[in-house]
Parts: sequence; structure tokens; C-alpha cells
Amino acid sequence: MSRIPRIVILGAGYGGIVTAIRLQKELNYNEADVTLVNKHDYHYITTHLHMPAAGTDNPENARVNILRLIDEFKIDFVKSTVTQIRPQEKKVLLEEGALSYDYLVVGLGGEPETFGIPGMKEYALSIRSINSVRFIREHIEYQFARFKREPNRKDYLTFIVGGAGFTGIEFVGELADRIPPLCKEFDVDPSLVKIYNIEAAPTALPGFDPELVEYAMNVLRNKGVTFRISTAIKECTPDGVILATGEQLKAATVVWTGGVRGNHMLDEAGFETMRGRIKVDAKLRAPGYDNVYVLGDCSIVMNPEGRPYPPTAQISMQQAGVCAHNLVASIRGERLKDFEYKSKGTVASLGRGEAIGIVGTRKIKGSVAAVMKKVIDVRYLYTIGGLPLVLRKGRF
Amino acid sequence: MSRIPRIVILGAGYGGIVTAIRLQKELNYNEADVTLVNKHDYHYITTHLHMPAAGTDNPENARVNILRLIDEFKIDFVKSTVTQIRPQEKKVLLEEGALSYDYLVVGLGGEPETFGIPGMKEYALSIRSINSVRFIREHIEYQFARFKREPNRKDYLTFIVGGAGFTGIEFVGELADRIPPLCKEFDVDPSLVKIYNIEAAPTALPGFDPELVEYAMNVLRNKGVTFRISTAIKECTPDGVILATGEQLKAATVVWTGGVRGNHMLDEAGFETMRGRIKVDAKLRAPGYDNVYVLGDCSIVMNPEGRPYPPTAQISMQQAGVCAHNLVASIRGERLKDFEYKSKGTVASLGRGEAIGIVGTRKIKGSVAAVMKKVIDVRYLYTIGGLPLVLRKGRF
Repeated sequence: MSRIPRIVILGAGYGGIVTAIRLQKELNYNEADVTLVNKHDYHYITTHLHMPAAGTDNPENARVNILRLIDEFKIDFVKSTVTQIRPQEKKVLLEEGALSYDYLVVGLGGEPETFGIPGMKEYALSIRSINSVRFIREHIEYQFARFKREPNRKDYLTFIVGGAGFTGIEFVGELADRIPPLCKEFDVDPSLVKIYNIEAAPTALPGFDPELVEYAMNVLRNKGVTFRISTAIKECTPDGVILATGEQLKAATVVWTGGVRGNHMLDEAGFETMRGRIKVDAKLRAPGYDNVYVLGDCSIVMNPEGRPYPPTAQISMQQAGVCAHNLVASIRGERLKDFEYKSKGTVASLGRGEAIGIVGTRKIKGSVAAVMKKVIDVRYLYTIGGLPLVLRKGRF
Repeated sequence: MSRIPRIVILGAGYGGIVTAIRLQKELNYNEADVTLVNKHDYHYITTHLHMPAAGTDNPENARVNILRLIDEFKIDFVKSTVTQIRPQEKKVLLEEGALSYDYLVVGLGGEPETFGIPGMKEYALSIRSINSVRFIREHIEYQFARFKREPNRKDYLTFIVGGAGFTGIEFVGELADRIPPLCKEFDVDPSLVKIYNIEAAPTALPGFDPELVEYAMNVLRNKGVTFRISTAIKECTPDGVILATGEQLKAATVVWTGGVRGNHMLDEAGFETMRGRIKVDAKLRAPGYDNVYVLGDCSIVMNPEGRPYPPTAQISMQQAGVCAHNLVASIRGERLKDFEYKSKGTVASLGRGEAIGIVGTRKIKGSVAAVMKKVIDVRYLYTIGGLPLVLRKGRF
């Protein structure tokens, strides 16, 4: 009797968890051993993290226990941190132990890309996990409490967000919404609070429709956000940032949303990478390794014009569908599918009741877009956990 | 026509606000000008501050807007900080401006007494105002968030409370109640959290019935509190405390409840003081100044055995009654009253559902005492603000 193939999935982000759920449905009994490895015992909804980071929603609404999403009789779950991938040996090392595989799915997620800006890694916060967003929320509240003890420290009430991409804009929208209740709670004059959103590119939300970008910036300006576009940050210090112009902005809080790179473990594993990402083949495999699938922030997929798609939850989930299909097909000796990205639209929230988006070729904004954003959130919960999850985490 | 006398009340704590409310009732139209001066536009319920400090209640429940308590047509309210008292000139200086008086009521409250322990003033937190308790609450939460980023920093989860007097014990009880929900919220193993209550005296709650003290300590030990009694703190550092034994306890949070002294402005004003307190005469006046009444933490009243009563809310409020009476009597040329303290009982809370107390000669403990504590709280709200205030702030 031949041994059944062993599939190891690294990471329970969008790519990993959706791959696991699909495999669980599609594989027959004893067709493969599937093991999902994740640092935490929960999956988190990265696209939602800007809300708990600002404190406008509870972090519990941004995470789901993994054992509620997978069937432990069909999939093994190992809570551990991956420390090394050894593709030659078909092995991954964990903080506690090691796992061998026949097929590997790498969905480890990305890391902040600070582009070598001095001090950014050390002093800026980033929105990347439940732990990090709880920290940011507490850090923000703490600055208000500190200010009441040292009222000459205006820098406690200055918040700098580096990067006006998707995450930066969505976070700034929530933060601006959070300021009035915080001012009320701590008896702080709202006019003392400053929010700066700084972007090196010549526009906020690069790649987005300019008319919608203009709309978004106006919404955020009206909430008190000051934009500094076409302005690079030269250095981040414990006291704030220094701009390329030489100007210094003092702030006790700097949140960096300016870039995402892939995972350092992929560089270390000997794969050919670009900023920690692997340019996958049409089947989503790492070049040279027919048994290694790479998803999400760890992967690069080119659009028809030959430029990489930005890494989003949407593309990760679509990749996961193809990845699961290809794994099953490989095991069964069937034909593999090519991955092709189909955009279902993009919506960026701008805080309570406001958003902008593109659905098909249609531009949407304001409350219509905000409702659309909610629909997308709910659709995702439904995809991974069905109606019970929608009811538990849907915030109605 | 003779000028009407001017009464200035400094501080809207228990002594000041109750004096103001009584004067408002007892004085006839145009009998006196009364001005109440306070740093904030709210009165706070000091005996309740241990709860918002630990985060077990909202700070809003511990404060009341002053203009809801006094009638502005009868009493002027000045929101300002007192900077100097000049009893010879019958004048007080404020941060903005100055006030002359014929009668002065000093209810400025106390300050932490650190007994010269090095570093205590600089590095320890104290439970003394709405701003300070919001800070302590945020500081505690922040340590949990920090620990998740730096899991080797066990000192983030160590909380040292210096002093096991009334405030120390009540705070420790609330803090112990707050730990389990914080551990749940931040995914922290509760066994990593340490609470130390350190007291230099040979017993917790010095002066309280030993049987009740024993009961209280057992309740708190079962909630996870470690007591170090008969143990002096030699020094407070940014990293924790050093005990007289030389032992070092590392902690990111030290809350000092070990002592209260009077107000430094009384020392500076040339009154005869003991640790910032004035030993008042039988009518509650500062020796040598028949027109200066001193209440609460700023005053010393001796018990029949010739030892000072501990400063409590209860004694302040009783003083306020006599003070108001004596002010009215002075103005009318009537006879002044002597102050005599009548204990109505004392209850110390030990967190949710637990307390100890003495009512008359009866010892009470457990849920009976906890209910009694609530009754006392409600009675106070009723005294100052009537039924509407009880309903607004009563936490039912």
C-alpha cells in the first residue's frame, strides 16, 4: 500500500485558510493528509484591522478561531511558528518540531517594507496582526492620558501615518472618527489633535481613479486630516519624522503603512525572490518546485501589462481556489488549472458612512460605497464560515 | 450701606462642595457673596477613584459637573487653579487673577506623601484625580499590549501597589478583578500576572479590626494578590522597587497609596503646618485666623485620645456641615459650633461582591459589607445631588 500524500499549509491568512477549507471539501477520505500551521489559533481578517487599530471596533470582530473554520477530523492544525523552509528536503522547521511534506502551500503573509528609511523599523508601528492593532489602539489612548499629565507635550496628540495607499487611507479615516470620542473621554480640546498622512508618491491611493481620490481626500480633510503628498519621509526618530525637505514633524505616534514585502523566510530558503516574494508560474508554483504553491503577499502574479497585481485579500482568495484545485488534481493525476485574476471591484472605506470604490467599470462613493464595503466584508465571512460566522462577527 | 461679606471656598472636594451646597441653602438673599474656586469644572468622588483607576468602572461615574450641584444664581463658580494664599492680605492668587475674601474655606485636598523615598515621586503613579486614574487605567492596559510585543518582559505584567491602607487595599481588590478580563482581551496567560501589595507597617489596614483584616487579606490572596507586610520600600526606580531587604522587584507599574499629606500651599502661606496640614481649633479655623476655615486633607482634627483622625470623606463632610453653620453664624453674629466627629461606620471594598466594615460596633464582611458600601456611595450622591444624581451616577 502506498503512503498517502502529505500537504502542509503554512499560514492561516486569506490564502492558507481558504485553501484548507477548499481541500476539506474536495478531498475524499484518505486521499491526502492535510496539516495547517499557524502562529496563532485564530485567523484574522486583515482588511478589517484598520478599525481595531484606530479603536473604532473590537479586535474580536477581526479574528475567528481556526477550529471553527476547519474540521479537525479532516485537517490537522498545528499552532506553531515556522522558522525555516527547506524545499530541497521537503521539510519545514517549526519553533517546536518539524514537518515533512509532499506538497507545500506557502501563505505566510508579508512584512512591512520600510525601503531602508532609517528608524522606521524601530520606531514606527504597523498594522499587521491582532497583537499589533491592540498595541496601536492602546498606544493612541495612552497618548491622550499622557497629555493630561504633561499638557505642554503637543506631540502626544500628533499622529503621523506614513503611506496613503489602501491601508493608510482606511486607517486615517477610522482614526479621524476616533478622535472626537477620545477628546470627549479625556477632556482634550479637539483642535490640539493633528493627523498627518504622508505619501511619497505624487498622489494618494496610487492607481485609483483620480476623481475618487480627490473625493476621498476631501472627505478626510473635512475630518481633520492633513495630507502631505509627494513628500518622502527621510527618517523616523523616537520623536517623530524628518521629511525629505528637512522639516521635522514631532509626534509620539508614527504608523507606517507605506509598503509590504514578502516573507524573509523565502529569501532564506533559497527561492528566487523579489523583496521576499516569489514570482509564481501560471499554476501558482514556485519556479523549480512543482510541489510548492505560493499565495498572497508571498507571491507575485503579473497582470496582462506585465506589472505585478497589488497584493490584496481578493487575489489571495482567488489564488487559494486555484491552489486547492491544483493540489487535488496533482494527487489524482488530473490536469492543473492556470490562475487568472478577475477583479470583483475594490472599495476603500473612509471611516463611518464613507467610502470610494470601483465595481466593474462603475465608480461609487459615499454611503453607497460604504454599504458595498459592508457587503464585501459579509461575503467574506460567509465564504469562510457560512451564516453562523456572519451572525457572530458581522457587526449589525 | 455696608458691603456684604465675601466667602471664598477653595476646592470642590468633599469639604468644599458640601460647604457650598449648605451655604446655598442656609444663606438668605444678599447675606453673603459666595465664590467656589476649583481647578476642574467637576467634583470627583475620591472614594470611588480606585475603580476607574483599575478600569473596573468608567471615570464618568466618579465625577459630577459642579454646575449641576450648585445654583449659579446663588454661588459664583470660578474654574481656576489656586497658586497662593495670602492670609494676611485676605487674598488668594489664581492662575488667572486674584480674589479677596472676608472668610476663606480651604478644602484644597491633599498630595501624595512619599516620606522621602527616593524615586517614588518621579516613578510611581498615584490615585488622586480623574486625570490620574484615567492615566493609571491606560497605563495598565498598555502594559498588556506591550507584553504581547515583547513576551520576555515579565515586568510589564507585574503590578506593585505601595501601601496597604484603605486606598491600597481597595485598589488592589479592583485590580485583581480587572486582570482576568484583561488577560482574556489580550490573550495573556493569567499565571504570568503578579500583583504585589507592599506595606511597611506590621499589618495591612492599620487600625482596623484584626479579624476583618485577616478576612480581607484572604479574599485578596485568593484573587492572586501577594502581600509583603512589614516590608518597607527603600527606593522606587524606573524598573520597579527596591525593598529595605535589598530585594528588587521588577515592575513597569508602581502605584503609590502609602500616604497623604496636606497641601504645599499651606506651608507656603505661613500657616503652622504638620506635613502640609493645619491643626484647626474646635470651630475648624486655622490658629490665629478667625476667618479661615480648613477642611479635609488640609486639616488635622484630634480624636479624644489626642491622635489625629485619619482623613476620610466622612470626616470632611461632617466638617463641611459645621463650617457652613459657623460661617452663617459669624455673619449673623450668632454663636459658633464646636466640631465633633461621629463615626457612621467604615467599609472597605475588596472588589466585586466583597468588602469588610465596622458599623457602630458591628463587624460586617462579604456581600453584606459590599451592599453596605453601595448604600454609603448612594447616600453620598443623594446628599450632594438628590435623586437625579443617584439615578445618573448610581451604577445600577
